[in-house]
Amino acid sequence: MELSPLSLAQSLLRCPSVTPEEGGALAFIEGVLKEAGFEVHRPVFSEPGTPDVENLYARYGRGEPCLLFAGHTDVVPPGDAARWTHDPFSGEIHGGELYGRGAVDMKGGIACMMAAALDFIRNNPEFKGSIGFLITGDEEGPAVNGTVKLLEWAKGRGERFDHCILGEPTNPNQLGDMIKIGRRGSLTGRIVVEGKQGHVAYPHLADNPIPGMLRLISGLLKEPLDHGTEHFDASNLEVTTVDVGNPASNVIPAEARATFNIRFNDLWNPQSLEEEIDRRLREAAGNTVRYRLTMDPTNAVAFLTPPNAFVGFIADAIKAETGFQPKLSTTGGTSDARFIVKDCPVVEFGLVGQTMHQIDERVPVADLDRLTGIYRKVLDAYFAAAY
Amino acid sequence: MELSPLSLAQSLLRCPSVTPEEGGALAFIEGVLKEAGFEVHRPVFSEPGTPDVENLYARYGRGEPCLLFAGHTDVVPPGDAARWTHDPFSGEIHGGELYGRGAVDMKGGIACMMAAALDFIRNNPEFKGSIGFLITGDEEGPAVNGTVKLLEWAKGRGERFDHCILGEPTNPNQLGDMIKIGRRGSLTGRIVVEGKQGHVAYPHLADNPIPGMLRLISGLLKEPLDHGTEHFDASNLEVTTVDVGNPASNVIPAEARATFNIRFNDLWNPQSLEEEIDRRLREAAGNTVRYRLTMDPTNAVAFLTPPNAFVGFIADAIKAETGFQPKLSTTGGTSDARFIVKDCPVVEFGLVGQTMHQIDERVPVADLDRLTGIYRKVLDAYFAAAY
Ligand SMILES: [Zn+2]
Ligand SMILES: [Zn+2]
Repeated sequence: MELSPLSLAQSLLRCPSVTPEEGGALAFIEGVLKEAGFEVHRPVFSEPGTPDVENLYARYGRGEPCLLFAGHTDVVPPGDAARWTHDPFSGEIHGGELYGRGAVDMKGGIACMMAAALDFIRNNPEFKGSIGFLITGDEEGPAVNGTVKLLEWAKGRGERFDHCILGEPTNPNQLGDMIKIGRRGSLTGRIVVEGKQGHVAYPHLADNPIPGMLRLISGLLKEPLDHGTEHFDASNLEVTTVDVGNPASNVIPAEARATFNIRFNDLWNPQSLEEEIDRRLREAAGNTVRYRLTMDPTNAVAFLTPPNAFVGFIADAIKAETGFQPKLSTTGGTSDARFIVKDCPVVEFGLVGQTMHQIDERVPVADLDRLTGIYRKVLDAYFAAAY
Repeated sequence: MELSPLSLAQSLLRCPSVTPEEGGALAFIEGVLKEAGFEVHRPVFSEPGTPDVENLYARYGRGEPCLLFAGHTDVVPPGDAARWTHDPFSGEIHGGELYGRGAVDMKGGIACMMAAALDFIRNNPEFKGSIGFLITGDEEGPAVNGTVKLLEWAKGRGERFDHCILGEPTNPNQLGDMIKIGRRGSLTGRIVVEGKQGHVAYPHLADNPIPGMLRLISGLLKEPLDHGTEHFDASNLEVTTVDVGNPASNVIPAEARATFNIRFNDLWNPQSLEEEIDRRLREAAGNTVRYRLTMDPTNAVAFLTPPNAFVGFIADAIKAETGFQPKLSTTGGTSDARFIVKDCPVVEFGLVGQTMHQIDERVPVADLDRLTGIYRKVLDAYFAAAY
């Protein structure tokens, strides 16, 4: 079996694993890792109202420390396949680039992890630590039968990890641009302002909730939540919708609704944020605006893996392989790292994200080789440091 | 034929004339007025997309001045007939009150007009002026095949009027409370603020239209439009709806929409108001908020029939019949008076509006007699003053 990252990536891209379909991708990984001496498990998770999803956990060695590679094989739908230059599930190469849904997000990244791990094991058959793979099939979909349950399942079996590399496409422009050492949290809140319906000709008999909603939203937006921290941008609140839904222009409506979302840094947690929101709304409402605030449950708290030796191994490997000094960033949306970080420090580094989720998603073949080289150097440094 | 207002009102209430159905109501009026010597016409008007509607125009005498009684026989639906104490189309009397859909709005008022006019004519067979009836069947519905077309039709026949009494229920609490000598105008406008859609995690790549919409609405509401005039309340602007319709709390929306309605007094017309709105929005928007403003077409301008001799006849008659000095008001919604006022001065006075459009709409029989007495005294004074 050829184990170049390109060949592994092509095999994975040819599996039509649009969430929640396994599409043969996990079976392929299972075969390769078993062949290399990994112990492989394929737990399937269920939840009422969502489709069952297959997942994979593999481990080579039982010693410490354990370095975990994490990722997902499921992909978003290809959209209109006719608009692709090459079939989205054919794994074709053109002009030095490998085309296919998942090329960068993130079957390409998984192929590099596998190629690097297998090469490391081949060259260090007696190393004392262990290497894990935590691969879910439910990251792009409802994400309820994926990483969260897989971590629980692993914990239940007594598995523990020392550090984790999540292979999401973290580089905005070029391989080596950016490592993600944390992520902001996400919190969504909903406001309902209650008024009293009536005819516009008799405003004194009604109570329009819209001016009250304006006051509340202005109160939320008046002051920045913070000005950022050493490793994080400022927290940001966006009002994502305001809705009254009154079709009659001669009627004063009874109720106005709004939703807001906050991306917050390590100065906050969901509870302290809710207290701050509550304080701002109460101040803006005074005694005149009647409203209700509810916060959606969230599992996305802000987290940071401080720039320590582990981050240094990755940054050094990137520098050696690409010549770039990567930016240590906490920007962007949430990722499965927020779940893994409860068990061990996580750093995210993968391919270049530009084409992810788009028509003609693709990756330069050279990037696959270089990312494999980076992961390979990390393995060397990580286990050399341990002994 | 008995021509008491109660008997006329009962006959009208028994006609199921829910818009656009004639229900026999106009036919009944035609019969009674013809019998009394009126020339009666029953024009039917059509408009693509709306049902044909029957209307009635009648005139007694050709001399001047011509006093016009105006009103409508169509009624709003009764709602759940089972919730009525008495069948909404049976004209039953209970506890001194006449029940039925239209009892006060405004078949009761029409019955009083007819009873008063017929009694006046019987007692003044040689009077030199004339009396008209302009009765539409399309006031509660789309109102496109009603008063506007009936006035055009009459003008086309060379009919002209000197003064008009519109018999809508103008009294809030007791017969004699309130005359309407004008109405505010109504103007509706719509605002669209354009932003740029994006992900909440990357606000710098998006442009949320909601804060801009807040600025525009705050600009609209910042200053009162005016502080009222001698006969009018202050003009009032209500934002009736704000809608974004974005279901995704992780997405910054592309667009926000709002609608507002202004009830305006005699300091404004639709054009001057639109200029003022435009000025306020431009000031609030500055160079940062991209928006579009459109105004709905309106035929509802503010109008006033100044308190002159004609208003005096009505107020005096009310005082004589009820003991009350009626308030001369311009409050409330729009009415067909806004169309008639283009041809002659209009004053509105009718029954007590409390039960209109409700279950168990009803009128005290005594109110029918007293309103008939008031209209009768107005006729005496009006034609006495003319000669
Ligand atoms: Zn991904
Ligand atoms: Zn009416």
